Order: sequence, then structure tokens, then C-alpha cells
Amino acid sequence: MDRLIAAGFLLLLLWCQAAAGVGGAVVRRPRPPSLARRYHHTSSSPPPPGGDAGASVPAVVQYETRHYTQRLDHFNSAPASYATFQQRYLVNDTFWRGRTAPIFLYAGNEGDVELFANNTGLMWEAAPRFGAMLVFVEHRYYGRSMPFGGSRAAAFRDAAAKGYLTVTQALADYASFVLSLKANLSAPAAPVVVLGGSYGGMLAVWMRLKYTHIVMGAVASSAPILSFYGLADPYAFYDRMTDDFKSESKHCYEVLRDSWAELDRLLATKEGRARMKSTFNMCNGSSVEDIPSLLESAVVYAAMTDYPTASGFLTPLPAYPVREMCRAVDRHPAGSGGGGETLSRVRAAMEVYYNHTGGAACFRGEEEDDPYGMLEGWDWQACTEMVLMTYGLSNDSILQPPWPFNFTDVLDSCRNATGLPPRPFWLETEFGGYDIGNVLKRSASNILFFNGLRDPWSTGGMLKSISDSIIALVEPKGAHHVDLRFSNKDDPEWLTRVRAKETRIIARWLKQYYSDEAIST
Amino acid sequence: MDRLIAAGFLLLLLWCQAAAGVGGAVVRRPRPPSLARRYHHTSSSPPPPGGDAGASVPAVVQYETRHYTQRLDHFNSAPASYATFQQRYLVNDTFWRGRTAPIFLYAGNEGDVELFANNTGLMWEAAPRFGAMLVFVEHRYYGRSMPFGGSRAAAFRDAAAKGYLTVTQALADYASFVLSLKANLSAPAAPVVVLGGSYGGMLAVWMRLKYTHIVMGAVASSAPILSFYGLADPYAFYDRMTDDFKSESKHCYEVLRDSWAELDRLLATKEGRARMKSTFNMCNGSSVEDIPSLLESAVVYAAMTDYPTASGFLTPLPAYPVREMCRAVDRHPAGSGGGGETLSRVRAAMEVYYNHTGGAACFRGEEEDDPYGMLEGWDWQACTEMVLMTYGLSNDSILQPPWPFNFTDVLDSCRNATGLPPRPFWLETEFGGYDIGNVLKRSASNILFFNGLRDPWSTGGMLKSISDSIIALVEPKGAHHVDLRFSNKDDPEWLTRVRAKETRIIARWLKQYYSDEAIST
Repeated sequence: MDRLIAAGFLLLLLWCQAAAGVGGAVVRRPRPPSLARRYHHTSSSPPPPGGDAGASVPAVVQYETRHYTQRLDHFNSAPASYATFQQRYLVNDTFWRGRTAPIFLYAGNEGDVELFANNTGLMWEAAPRFGAMLVFVEHRYYGRSMPFGGSRAAAFRDAAAKGYLTVTQALADYASFVLSLKANLSAPAAPVVVLGGSYGGMLAVWMRLKYTHIVMGAVASSAPILSFYGLADPYAFYDRMTDDFKSESKHCYEVLRDSWAELDRLLATKEGRARMKSTFNMCNGSSVEDIPSLLESAVVYAAMTDYPTASGFLTPLPAYPVREMCRAVDRHPAGSGGGGETLSRVRAAMEVYYNHTGGAACFRGEEEDDPYGMLEGWDWQACTEMVLMTYGLSNDSILQPPWPFNFTDVLDSCRNATGLPPRPFWLETEFGGYDIGNVLKRSASNILFFNGLRDPWSTGGMLKSISDSIIALVEPKGAHHVDLRFSNKDDPEWLTRVRAKETRIIARWLKQYYSDEAIST
Repeated sequence: MDRLIAAGFLLLLLWCQAAAGVGGAVVRRPRPPSLARRYHHTSSSPPPPGGDAGASVPAVVQYETRHYTQRLDHFNSAPASYATFQQRYLVNDTFWRGRTAPIFLYAGNEGDVELFANNTGLMWEAAPRFGAMLVFVEHRYYGRSMPFGGSRAAAFRDAAAKGYLTVTQALADYASFVLSLKANLSAPAAPVVVLGGSYGGMLAVWMRLKYTHIVMGAVASSAPILSFYGLADPYAFYDRMTDDFKSESKHCYEVLRDSWAELDRLLATKEGRARMKSTFNMCNGSSVEDIPSLLESAVVYAAMTDYPTASGFLTPLPAYPVREMCRAVDRHPAGSGGGGETLSRVRAAMEVYYNHTGGAACFRGEEEDDPYGMLEGWDWQACTEMVLMTYGLSNDSILQPPWPFNFTDVLDSCRNATGLPPRPFWLETEFGGYDIGNVLKRSASNILFFNGLRDPWSTGGMLKSISDSIIALVEPKGAHHVDLRFSNKDDPEWLTRVRAKETRIIARWLKQYYSDEAIST
């Protein structure tokens, strides 16, 4: 009766998996960052009634599923480039006022596009006001949008097949798709606003920069477009995460920071492992050697999804999960010494993250589950062109031991993973980043950046407004693309205000567009 | 002792070759337009001393030849994409004031890059004032910049090899190249202005639109960025050419317009061909059946290169060659009736175009000469993605018979030529064009369009300024990228004024850039 708690996961996430040494010391080796991540860590029996908020989709979310015949390679004229595949997209035209009314396009990121449709509340809530059509387009090589006949196995069969999985191809897909969509709607003048969160937010910005004639504005939530080599501090990501915990409780931070060595020490001896077994009820097939990686996941994801209301994004979580984890750590009675105190506190923290609803019977180790088809594609992207600078662990990081950043090692490890040299400078070449303020001030408009400073990814985000129409909204208390989520009666005032501001900014773009085009509305 | 008169040819040209029927009627079938064209039509014996102005290069033109190791496919991560080739570029740093001083980049078009270096006088003449470095980068698959080992045969061996010859790859080449160049110069803040004429001008505009972070301004001379389906009137190109002749002399236009039928009639009989032989001294290996295509070339190229001073671009020409051809037609005494009058007038017109210096002993038919390696690449480009709308001949065209525009026929003929379906909408998808004024007004800056209205290609050019920094300079008397040519003491005042204006506009961009960057100059 065990059941995985699967929650839709749309986030830019780190995948710095703990490599469990067999019966020995656990050495955490950060792997290339991943937008995707396994998210099944607990087993519950039976499932909590209504406890899985991530799986509950508001009734407003209604769409038709359609397909667009997409070209395999936009930038090459070789015969093989002319192959096509079926790209999935979801449409809701309930609210659309027609022909010159806006189209809100979600730029699908790494995963099943239904996840994005189900979780991007801002679009659903804004559509009636704007009379907007909603379109969610799936990223090639994710979900059901597989080249080479539609099967995942064929699309990922080798490097030659995977080679067509690049950012520029995905953007050109969206550009071609939008023009076709508008032609079919006989709505050439309908303004298109592109939205996205996380990697989808990066795509939204880049689409506005590269296809100004196709999308007239971009809303980019928690898009770390500056997380590239030479632009971002490679320690900043984990430093921010560390600060999130420190800000709640210095004691909590210290307990967690010191816990890794303690866990390693315990795992190194039979006695220690026995003690861990008695503290943690591991599910069948899982072992206490999974605990460091489970703890690490809990720490990383709690920081990223440190939302102000209870959520079910990754897993059911209370409001402010970092605070709750720290409260659990801080208030938990000391254990029986010799590591027992640490163990019981670690368990308390993990209970918050993995068993908020109280329905989990045991802890389940991480495995290669990938129900939304994220990992394979993202691992490829992250080691070919999307080499994000999120590797370094400082001496005082909440994750231990420290991991000095070494760019050569990062590139070598990617080369080993893909068999190809990574191209860490390519996306900077294609999309810029250096001196971005001056560049965009003179050559771009209508971009809205949202970043929440609780979110470690905000360390690679645009935090400064550039002009009247390139605006950075920065919320000290915000987590990863919290603004895109469905609103909630318990939302704090700042979040309500952010969403209202975003809506006003979109309205301003549209007003200007209609004025430019002499379209009366 | 025959010698080809080869003149460097940098123009966007039509290649609507007359297909000579063997001993029968000549039916002109417009072929896909070509930026390149054979340009050897006459034989001279001996070569006129100093008569070939196209080959004489001003002493200021001095450069080093270098190579950059360029990636084969920027937009694909398959192992084959990582292949590299040597991309040639030419550098002059004599005038460069260093580090923060500007770099003027010529975006190489279809041909040997030395041609562009030798003929883009504006850059050489402006460099001292701006303290600019001059860089001319060669377009992949042209000149010496051949993928697959460097040989033309390997680069063009089949469609799979030719597939990497696309506009987007060429632009990404330039982007990668510029960043590498600036890194090697330790000049990350040096502003780069990209310039180009004809297809090179299209590349310059598109580079400014797509790589705003790499080039801070673009000078696009005679760039027909709107010559695509749905944007351009497919009859406009030849209509403009027709108007050029009409504007000089209605009688001349009528003679030329009616000459094709007359030539066909003569070619249809033995007697007629004999009469043509007695009028035209054809070189060995050429025949009177070549005459219609020779006349057509003369008409087309005279219109495009209707420069206000004697030039040697295609072939040595007098100032205002259209006027001179018409004067020759109009003043030439009537012949001996029965086509003789037409023949002698046609001959007079052809003498202006093919024998301005008086050194040509005979007329030589068109052949597949291609000393600058233009045709093979351009034919491929013109039928894959660069499907320019220059096909239709109106009823009253100076070229006869009329050729009703039929898009399906154009696409079919391209499909036959390449074996692949053409993509006539792709470049519009990638770079825009529809509603360009409103689009660029809100999302671009620092583009200078020059068009001369005598130039048939101006019918696909940007003729309206869009903003303070997106400026269209339009000269009623200008021909194809006349502004880029070396200045001449006999230049008319308007041409001198245009070049001065262009220089002032570039200076304004640079001033703003230095102000933005807080760089004192």
C-alpha cells in the first residue's frame, strides 16, 4: 500500500546528490545542477486525504491538448534537419476576446507541459481581466514532445539524437509555433506575452530578446539568466541557502551544518548505523545510508520553496518550511548523546519536509524516478550548454564538507557525463549577460523580472530595473517563482501586491501596443 | 590573347539568365535571384591600361590575414556539430586607438572577403577619424572559409555538407568571432559597429537585432530585408529597373522593351542569325544566341550600378551608365530595317556596358565562371531560406516577355534545384519584417539603413526612419550601396552629404555608448 507522494515540480533545482559510500563515509559530490530532480522521498500509507496539494488542480484549469508539427533543426538545411516531430501544446480560449486580444504564452521548460499549466496560477487568474487566450507549449525532448517518432528511447538514444536538444532550437520552436497559431486564428495583430518560471523564465526573457517581433513582452520569474561563468559567484547559490536557515535560527544552522560529519561518523561504524536505524524508520529497500542525501534535499528544497503558505509543490509543506524545519530542530529534545541528539534533530527536520501531513510511514531513499520525464533531458542540457554556476560550497555552508569551486573539474565531469566538451560560454555568446544593464537599456523593452531573495536562484537573477519597461521586482521574502503560483487567501500582503504590480505592468505594455497599432480596445 | 575582364562584384544581383534555345526562340526564365553573378561578358585584347577600375585598390587598403577556429554548428550539440573550420578575417589596426576605441566590423557576404575589404571605402575613410580598428570577416562557405577541411569540393559535396550554410550560423560565427577577438585584444569594452552592403547589409541589421550585446550599431547599405514573401511586391524589383530606364528616355525604354521579341524573331531563322552575326562580333566559343542574356545582364547591372561617377565595379562603366546606354540607343542611327535598327541599337547599348574602355575586341557569352566562389553557395542559400521576391516581370517591363509571379512555381523550381523544400518564411520567422516599424521602435536602436532609389533592391529596403536612432537615409539618385564606395572627387554633393551624415550618426552612437559606459574619450 505504499504510495509515492508525487508533486509536480517546476523548479530550477540543484542536483547535488549524495553518493552513498557502501557502509563507509559519505562524500557529497555536487553534480551538474539540474532543473529537474527526483521528488519521491517518502512513502505514505494510506495517502493523506487531500494532503497532496501539488496534485490538486484548481477547477479553472481547463484546456485542450493539441499538437504542432515542428521542424527538427531550424538552423541547418541538411536533409536530416527537415524531419519533424509533434510538439504538444495546451490551449484555453474561454476568456479570449478574439483577434486582437492578447495571447499569454507559457514557455515550457524541462518537463511535462501539463505541470506548468496546472501550476501557473498567475496566467489563469489574469486571463479574464485581459480577455487573454492561454497557451502552454511543451519544450522539445520533454513530456510528450519527442523527436524521432515520439518515443523517449529514440529521442535519447545517442548524442547525435540528443544534439537537437538546445535552447536556441527550443526558442525557434516557440517562434514558429506562435506564428502558425496566430495565422490559424486569423489574428496576426494579437499581442503575445510570454511567461515562464525558472528555466522557463530564462526562455521567456531570451525569447523577448531574440524574437521581439513575435512576443511583445516577457514575464520572467526566478530566471537565473546571469548564472553563467564570469557573471555569477559560484558560491552564491549555497551561501544564500545557508543564509535562509541562519536567518531563522543560528542554532538550527549550526546543528544542520555539523550534522553531516556526525552522520558520516555514524555511518562509518556498525554501531552508528544501528543507532540510525533505530531513529529513522526506513522503508523497505531503503537504508540509513540514504539519510545524508535525504537531509540535503530537504534543506535545498525547503529553501527554494520557502513559500508563505502551505504548499504541495514538491511535497506537502507547511507555510515557511525553513522556519518550521528550524523550529523542529531547535525545540526537539536532545537525544541520548553520542550523536543521538543530532540524529533526533535531523529526524525532526526531515519529518517537516517529508511528513508534514503525518501520513508517511517510513522514509524512502532517493531513486531514479522520473515520472515527468525531466532528468534525462536536463542532465544533457546542463552539461552541454546550460552550465550554471552553482557548484561551490563555502567553508561555512550549511552543506558540508566545503566544496571549492574548480571550473576545470566541473567541465571535466560534464565531459565524462556526455562524452562531449561542454560549451559554458555559448549561452552568454548567444544571449549576453555582460554589461546587461547598458545593453538592454538601449535595445530592449517590456521585460519583467521577478526574484525572491529567499530563493538561492535569485543570486543569478536580474535584481535591478533597467528602464521604464525593463523592471526587476525583488521581494526579500519571496521564494522560487512564488509569484506565478495560484493566489491563496493566506498570501501575505507583499505577494498580493507583487502580483497586482505584474498585472499592471502587463496592462501597460498592452496599452502601449494597442496605441502603437491604433487598435481600439 | 583574349582576356576576361574580371571586376570584383559585391552586389545583390539578379541571376535571371536567358536560357538560349538551340537555334530556336529564346525564352527567358527568371531563375532564383542570386547575390552573386558571373561577371565576365567581354573579351578585350589587350587589356586597357588602367581601365579596370574594379581591380585597382586604393593604397590605404592594407590588412593582415588571420584565421579563427570556428564551430561548424552553433545550435546543435550532436558530436558532428563540434567540428571546426578556419574562418578567414582581415584586420587593419593602423588607426586603432586601442582598448576602448571602436571596431568596425564588415559582415562578409557571399564572396571572397578581400573583395569587401577592397571596396568598402567608407570604412577606410572613416577609420582615422574614429581611431577604429577595421575587421572584415569572411562568410562561411565563401572565399577561403570552407568547412570540412577547407576545400570547396568537400564543403559542397552534398546537401548534408551544404546544410550548415545558413544565415543564422553565419551570424553566430560573427558573434563568436567578435567575442574572441575582443578577448584577445583585452578590449571587452570596445564598441563594435557592424557594416555591410547588400546581403552583408542584411547580416549587419540582423546581427544588431540578434546580438545587441555584441554589436552596438549597424550600418546597412542597400539591404533588402523586406524582400520576402508577403512583405515585398514581387514585381517591384523589375518595375524599378524599368523606371530607371524610362526616367532617362521613354524612347530608349521602348526600344529595349521591344528588342527581345525582335531578337527572338531573328534567332528563329538562319537569315536572322546571319544578320546578328554581321552586327555583333562574337568571340570564339560564343554565339549570337547569347545576345539576349548579355543584353539582359547589361540592363540589370547598369540599373543597379548606376553610379554617379565612372566605376569599375562589375566592369568599367561611365558615370550614370543607364543614361549613357539610353543616349547610345537614342542617338544611334537606324539600321537597315527588318530588325537592323533594333540590332544596331542593342549593340550600341551593349557597347556602353561591355566596352566602355574600347578595349573589347568581341562579345563573350555568359559562362559558369566564378573566380570569387560566389555562385555555388548563393544558389544554395537562395533556394533554401533566402527566397527573395524578385521574380515577376510586369506587362510593361523593360525585360520581356512578362513573367507573371507564381509562388508555387518559384518553390517548385527551388525544390528541383536543391532536392529540398525551400523555407520561404523562415527568415521572416527568425528576423521579422511584418509591422517592422512598430516592432523596432520598441525593441531596437542604432541602425542606419541606406537605400538609393535607382537601385531595384531598394524596393525591399527600409525607407522610413523608425526612431531617433533607427534611421533610413534614402537618396533618389543613389544606386546599390553607393555610399560604401570610396569617395571620388567627382562625387555629387548628395553623395558626399550622405557619407558625412552616416559618419555623424555613427559618432552619435559612439558618444552615447561612451557616456553609458562612463568611458572618457
